[in-house]
Amino acid sequence: MTASGWTKGDPIRTSEDYLESLRGRNLEVWLLGERVEEPVDHPIIRPSINAIAETFDLANRNPDLATAKSAITGERVNRFLHITEGVDDVVAQNRMQRELGRLTGTCFQRCVGMDAINSVYSVTHDIDAAHGTRYHARFREFLAMAQHHGYVLGGAMTDVKGDRSKAPSDQADPDLYVRIVERRDDGIVIRGAKAHQTGCINSHWILVMPTLRLTEADRDYAVVCAVPVEAKGLTYIYGRQACDTRAMEPGDIDVGNARYSGQEAMIVIDDVFVPWEHVFMDGEHEFAAPLVERFTNYHRRSYVCKSGVGDVLIGAAALIAEYNGVDRASHIRDKLVEMNHLNETIYGTGMAASHEAHRTAAGNYENDAMLANVCKHHVTKYPYEIGRIAQDLAGGLVTTLPSEAELKDSKLGPLLDKYLAGRADIPTEHRVRILRLIENMTMGRNAVGYLTESLHGAGSPQAQRIQIARLADMDEKKAAAMRLAGIEGK
Amino acid sequence: MTASGWTKGDPIRTSEDYLESLRGRNLEVWLLGERVEEPVDHPIIRPSINAIAETFDLANRNPDLATAKSAITGERVNRFLHITEGVDDVVAQNRMQRELGRLTGTCFQRCVGMDAINSVYSVTHDIDAAHGTRYHARFREFLAMAQHHGYVLGGAMTDVKGDRSKAPSDQADPDLYVRIVERRDDGIVIRGAKAHQTGCINSHWILVMPTLRLTEADRDYAVVCAVPVEAKGLTYIYGRQACDTRAMEPGDIDVGNARYSGQEAMIVIDDVFVPWEHVFMDGEHEFAAPLVERFTNYHRRSYVCKSGVGDVLIGAAALIAEYNGVDRASHIRDKLVEMNHLNETIYGTGMAASHEAHRTAAGNYENDAMLANVCKHHVTKYPYEIGRIAQDLAGGLVTTLPSEAELKDSKLGPLLDKYLAGRADIPTEHRVRILRLIENMTMGRNAVGYLTESLHGAGSPQAQRIQIARLADMDEKKAAAMRLAGIEGK
Amino acid sequence: MTASGWTKGDPIRTSEDYLESLRGRNLEVWLLGERVEEPVDHPIIRPSINAIAETFDLANRNPDLATAKSAITGERVNRFLHITEGVDDVVAQNRMQRELGRLTGTCFQRCVGMDAINSVYSVTHDIDAAHGTRYHARFREFLAMAQHHGYVLGGAMTDVKGDRSKAPSDQADPDLYVRIVERRDDGIVIRGAKAHQTGCINSHWILVMPTLRLTEADRDYAVVCAVPVEAKGLTYIYGRQACDTRAMEPGDIDVGNARYSGQEAMIVIDDVFVPWEHVFMDGEHEFAAPLVERFTNYHRRSYVCKSGVGDVLIGAAALIAEYNGVDRASHIRDKLVEMNHLNETIYGTGMAASHEAHRTAAGNYENDAMLANVCKHHVTKYPYEIGRIAQDLAGGLVTTLPSEAELKDSKLGPLLDKYLAGRADIPTEHRVRILRLIENMTMGRNAVGYLTESLHGAGSPQAQRIQIARLADMDEKKAAAMRLAGIEGK
Amino acid sequence: MTASGWTKGDPIRTSEDYLESLRGRNLEVWLLGERVEEPVDHPIIRPSINAIAETFDLANRNPDLATAKSAITGERVNRFLHITEGVDDVVAQNRMQRELGRLTGTCFQRCVGMDAINSVYSVTHDIDAAHGTRYHARFREFLAMAQHHGYVLGGAMTDVKGDRSKAPSDQADPDLYVRIVERRDDGIVIRGAKAHQTGCINSHWILVMPTLRLTEADRDYAVVCAVPVEAKGLTYIYGRQACDTRAMEPGDIDVGNARYSGQEAMIVIDDVFVPWEHVFMDGEHEFAAPLVERFTNYHRRSYVCKSGVGDVLIGAAALIAEYNGVDRASHIRDKLVEMNHLNETIYGTGMAASHEAHRTAAGNYENDAMLANVCKHHVTKYPYEIGRIAQDLAGGLVTTLPSEAELKDSKLGPLLDKYLAGRADIPTEHRVRILRLIENMTMGRNAVGYLTESLHGAGSPQAQRIQIARLADMDEKKAAAMRLAGIEGK
Repeated sequence: MTASGWTKGDPIRTSEDYLESLRGRNLEVWLLGERVEEPVDHPIIRPSINAIAETFDLANRNPDLATAKSAITGERVNRFLHITEGVDDVVAQNRMQRELGRLTGTCFQRCVGMDAINSVYSVTHDIDAAHGTRYHARFREFLAMAQHHGYVLGGAMTDVKGDRSKAPSDQADPDLYVRIVERRDDGIVIRGAKAHQTGCINSHWILVMPTLRLTEADRDYAVVCAVPVEAKGLTYIYGRQACDTRAMEPGDIDVGNARYSGQEAMIVIDDVFVPWEHVFMDGEHEFAAPLVERFTNYHRRSYVCKSGVGDVLIGAAALIAEYNGVDRASHIRDKLVEMNHLNETIYGTGMAASHEAHRTAAGNYENDAMLANVCKHHVTKYPYEIGRIAQDLAGGLVTTLPSEAELKDSKLGPLLDKYLAGRADIPTEHRVRILRLIENMTMGRNAVGYLTESLHGAGSPQAQRIQIARLADMDEKKAAAMRLAGIEGK
Repeated sequence: MTASGWTKGDPIRTSEDYLESLRGRNLEVWLLGERVEEPVDHPIIRPSINAIAETFDLANRNPDLATAKSAITGERVNRFLHITEGVDDVVAQNRMQRELGRLTGTCFQRCVGMDAINSVYSVTHDIDAAHGTRYHARFREFLAMAQHHGYVLGGAMTDVKGDRSKAPSDQADPDLYVRIVERRDDGIVIRGAKAHQTGCINSHWILVMPTLRLTEADRDYAVVCAVPVEAKGLTYIYGRQACDTRAMEPGDIDVGNARYSGQEAMIVIDDVFVPWEHVFMDGEHEFAAPLVERFTNYHRRSYVCKSGVGDVLIGAAALIAEYNGVDRASHIRDKLVEMNHLNETIYGTGMAASHEAHRTAAGNYENDAMLANVCKHHVTKYPYEIGRIAQDLAGGLVTTLPSEAELKDSKLGPLLDKYLAGRADIPTEHRVRILRLIENMTMGRNAVGYLTESLHGAGSPQAQRIQIARLADMDEKKAAAMRLAGIEGK
Repeated sequence: MTASGWTKGDPIRTSEDYLESLRGRNLEVWLLGERVEEPVDHPIIRPSINAIAETFDLANRNPDLATAKSAITGERVNRFLHITEGVDDVVAQNRMQRELGRLTGTCFQRCVGMDAINSVYSVTHDIDAAHGTRYHARFREFLAMAQHHGYVLGGAMTDVKGDRSKAPSDQADPDLYVRIVERRDDGIVIRGAKAHQTGCINSHWILVMPTLRLTEADRDYAVVCAVPVEAKGLTYIYGRQACDTRAMEPGDIDVGNARYSGQEAMIVIDDVFVPWEHVFMDGEHEFAAPLVERFTNYHRRSYVCKSGVGDVLIGAAALIAEYNGVDRASHIRDKLVEMNHLNETIYGTGMAASHEAHRTAAGNYENDAMLANVCKHHVTKYPYEIGRIAQDLAGGLVTTLPSEAELKDSKLGPLLDKYLAGRADIPTEHRVRILRLIENMTMGRNAVGYLTESLHGAGSPQAQRIQIARLADMDEKKAAAMRLAGIEGK
Repeated sequence: MTASGWTKGDPIRTSEDYLESLRGRNLEVWLLGERVEEPVDHPIIRPSINAIAETFDLANRNPDLATAKSAITGERVNRFLHITEGVDDVVAQNRMQRELGRLTGTCFQRCVGMDAINSVYSVTHDIDAAHGTRYHARFREFLAMAQHHGYVLGGAMTDVKGDRSKAPSDQADPDLYVRIVERRDDGIVIRGAKAHQTGCINSHWILVMPTLRLTEADRDYAVVCAVPVEAKGLTYIYGRQACDTRAMEPGDIDVGNARYSGQEAMIVIDDVFVPWEHVFMDGEHEFAAPLVERFTNYHRRSYVCKSGVGDVLIGAAALIAEYNGVDRASHIRDKLVEMNHLNETIYGTGMAASHEAHRTAAGNYENDAMLANVCKHHVTKYPYEIGRIAQDLAGGLVTTLPSEAELKDSKLGPLLDKYLAGRADIPTEHRVRILRLIENMTMGRNAVGYLTESLHGAGSPQAQRIQIARLADMDEKKAAAMRLAGIEGK
């Protein structure tokens, strides 16, 4: 990777190192109709970079939680770069995810990469076993490099898909799924686009993976490879989110959570060259389905992070109830119980999936699939309900507040101080700040991560239902019922 | 009313008349830290004016639905200005509300006034009966004037409240509830502030009412009066809403619903003079509670409007499913059924309340209270669930779409056309427009009206639960149980 | 009808008349493996007869509610025999149903007949219009006779159905749907069986109707006719229900609701002759679907009765909370609110359907279909939730109580009095009686009517979902969304 | 324990040994008003004994699952008698519970004892540490004896409670909570009654424990001791359950689950002597609360057993859908997914609690409290919803089926075979058997265990809500919100 301009030598250890490593990459990023000069300094993009930066800070502050000793390099590495070496590693991911959700109040965007490397790790092993290829060793080398440098890896799975009733090779436009357009002596050339990319401009590498089950006819779509974010031919079109431009306004109140946010972009891949050393699947189409399944399996339980984000919203709801002076009312207390009950259900089902992890043939560990799907399925509903209750506790003011400019205005400010007064010991600004945080998480920018992404990330609700149907051992259940009902032969 | 500068003589009959009537009033409106020159022309405010304008258009297009013949003036008047003269009038309000919800996709802000005049109508009658006052006739005169001119009346009930554990007269600052600060020969002077004012800058008159049960000590807070919107001493501080500034960007796509929106403001009342002819309660504190109860009773069932807004969101969800090519999938169809089931429950319970209306002592008709509370209570939950399902059907793209600027960009536009292609017969822009509408209604500006206002308007969820507890005839139910259980004496 | 042995001359006016009219009919009724001598005196059957008897008592006690003046005979008739002559008649059915639910705490089994006559009334009119037949006049004659005598009419719609993937005429056994096996000069001969017959042995006549859409090939299945309950060839096989045999034990406590219950039976129709005067459809297969649809339409909103049954259960829950001394706890009060909220939603949606009734071509009135389906769909869920909350308030004792025999035992009785003591002023027996009533309604005999029949009667949940999908005007909703999204041409 | 007549020498190893060990104990058991001669042979009681017998069979069939090596005796013991020596032991309890739920389709009644010994184990250790007593060693001796003999231990916690607003020592009748009435040289004498006793007549020993927080004034109520089931002075009054007498009818179909059921009884304790060697708390009132809390903590997560019972009901629902020929319908398949989703949520949250177990000061392991409460709280709702869906899939026949006697009748049997025919390859009897099993689990005898006991066992819903409120670290959540909202000092 000496070719990568951003490789500035020393490993990335701190959030400062990380920010520095992202600068000067000359990425082609488009946002609100303009080419972004330097993403690190763009007020809308920066909070999503801050969120990943927090994963470095946490690693330094709490290495037990957020780092692990890698059997690949023998070094301590950020847990997001670590291959699970035991059940405890799988569980530790969940603990770290909850803490980061609580620290950032949003999607910190690094789980996709973590779940991708663990999936590719076992799938490359299985491809090699079936085909005599050497992908697994190649992937370990790539990982060793990434671990050593402390890179941020993004995973890119979701193709744009076109007509959903047709296979990749049957589309009118063959580029609607990412594919190999050329195989050369030194590598491959890929083309297509990946949608809904959570975290990419703030990454160093992207692991490209297929998005669904493929057949023989789709061989050119069966590609897994690693691409540096600044690779020639990549264009990033930034998705806009509710209230995004508030980050460009003066002040830090109306934005709700000034420091952190998520990031969603479309990546257009226009004939990008990938050397063989970074290619980890090339045409072995029958392994596309296992890869997708393992990745979503890991990732559905990674949504435990939302219980950490939920902690923030529950905390905000409790605070606003206090600020409004109604925190002793029984119905308020009961609503906080309900929020916690739902939030811990997400955590509990996800943690159970991780605790029930099993060893793969490759030697790393993968969580239980049924419980991971159950976890994610709750995630598609409960944050919406928690959000609704938070708005309930907030009171109508959450959507009728004037702007920060009025609060700070010399004439209107005192008027608002007078008329927005609640409990005497709480400054109006504190009340406003908490209300804006609740708005941010339920209708604003981080509602994207807390609500909509919870709905669709790692598969929309129906995807979990299909998996639950597949994973439930219905024969065993039917046999149990027949035996107790006295039906012979069982 | 010759004093009102905006009274330009002829009655307001069309939406053009209405817009014209709002101009040049020199209101003191603050928004995003700036004094607004002319609200009618402000891109953020205008859509909320358009929403009310639609009530004039509908009256002209469909007079059966949106007008009624007034027994007070003998003229056909806009239904929003009409006093209910029979059960059918109560029911007709709901039908009109659903249609306007469907037409605007948001809160059209005129129900508060309609429900306020009907409540004040019967309460003034009752005050007169108890005290020998003449409020009722005075109010009828005011109404006759308003009906004749076709004015838009806003209702202002919600005080800012301060410390919620204390009565108005016990607050540290006596102004935290609107009160009479001076009684003069020619009228009264009032002071205070009203919060969460849905529709005011786009009204001609505001009907000021108390917000809760009052005692003898709170006599000065027991005030009902009508104030012209441009009265000296009124300041309007505009509430900001999710994605509000998108209305100031070029283009009409990202805003989701370019034409209509709601409006929320705080009204600061700084020693405003009200002549006696516009005062309808002055110290009769024991009628504050009945007024609040009747108003919320009407208003809780007025939330049937949300079933009209729900129609739009259901339609948008059905369209995006078609555009995504998945509308035949059984789980998609089932989700549309669920949305309709919830939406019609709102409509059904509200309509039942109206159909079960009774005649008041004053002669107008008021809907059933239990069913109105049941209706509103569903409104505090179902729109959130309908919104969640809409986002489910939308797919993740609803929050990862690039901006209109990229779509229209000469380089990026074709790229997005290529990669956002779904069904061949649907232009990408149509798909984007529907997604932005769904975003608008679930996370954007109209989510305020469809979700948060549904939660808090006319009383937060707990307020309905308290009323349901009061209204349920538990003795009758207990007697029925005892009789069937064979417990003697019943 | 001189042939009918039970026609004892005078009209049936009182519950005593009614009981007398049922005696000595020599029906072939089987229950628990034995032929029942006289159903009126069988302890398991009698409570279901008592429930219908209550419809006579109510008519005498409250004629406004439970009778109406018939335009057919000019006489006041029981409302269950009345053809709806206006919207008020449709609404009055719902009011009467709620009251009877409250009076009996169970299914009073007479709505099927009421809804059947109103459906057959309009469908016979439409058949005549299409085919020049004279069914409608014939049916009016039959109705006049039934109204005059005050008969109880049961409706029999649900066939046993066999292989559900095949039409009636395609079944291996042609008898799996009721059909005409012979057409004679004087009438027809029918054969088959009707399942889940709610109320039949306690009726005088049964109105046989087809159960689903029929085609040309199914002509012989397109039969509507009236059959006297004691007709030769009918066999009634009584369905057993949870805790049914408690009615055969001494005492009246353990049975929970000693006086009232429902009744479910299978009717085997073994070549029963029906004279032409009682045949109201004979082969007009294309009218089977409208008949089914109109019947289920009326009937789905008839489930408003369950709000009356719900009143009993809510009353019982409130009582047991008092007896347990916990009725002031906020969570208990909140649960009672929830029960009422759910219960009134059933009532409200059903009442709205009735209030929105329209006139049929035949001149009678039929309720709104969408709201009726919404009502019934809630009925498939809410009683279960109300039942669960009732058990919550009851405490564990509801399923661990000793039997009445121990309570009355000279040694154990005082012991139980000592140890089951709650509030000092409440006799242990009262507490036990209310607990047994709750058991009866949630796990015992009347749980059949309150829960399972609520689920399946008038169509299982999916049947309503299909209708809601059909009835929702999706084109209008989509047009509304397109207009607001700025999609041209709308 | 030589004093115990039932000690027949050899350890109990098989279900046959177990049944034999229960015979001839001359217990005073009352059921349906009669003294039961020999409980083992009573048709209503026997199925509850069979359920416990299954715990012996499972231990022999699958020792890894249902036995463990005890550090106390060095022997392999039944897991229900085992003190948790590590996290894996805590988790293994849940696995065994699910399997037994699936095997029996009901409550197998042995968890109370298991959870009681683990709670008493750590609490006796803590009492000794605080008071210098020797309860812990004494309890280990008792345990060693019980483990060696393979006894079934029941736990008795729930007092009858009288006036719930008063403490034990403040009750009008001091016996409403079990208490020490005499302290002698050789032991204590206790009096009172325990209610809702799940499994006692089928046990060998009962561990008596206090039921709530006690104060100094309640010292005599602070008693933990072991009592043999056949101790002089114990009277067992059997609770009656829905459909209980079907077990006394001929045939095995109508009963639904002929082999297994639960058991609930009231135990009256009339001055029972307990030697000191079996007393494990005597007056240390401040340890009553920790004991209750630890017991409910273990026990709330023991409700994972209901996911095993749920497996049976899900299997039965899937079978009846097949038998009805509708198993391919999308709405049917979706309902099975929903059942599994709910069922696995119970399992997942319970398992998470167990996996997150911690070591106590005494050295045994106790599960996480928050997740255990979340698990149990779901258990108070989900089985009801699973039951409702099972009835939905069953169709109305589940409550209208004739009795087994008709099915076996020479005349009616063939008629029913003809008319209850569904899929040609499924005997009518199989269909009936599965329907009766569903009835049994949703309205019949095992509905007590699956539904009502799920609601109230180990604490009614509100008890979990109180614990969730206590266990949620709200300060941490509030701090997280303040930090992100930019409120200083955090």
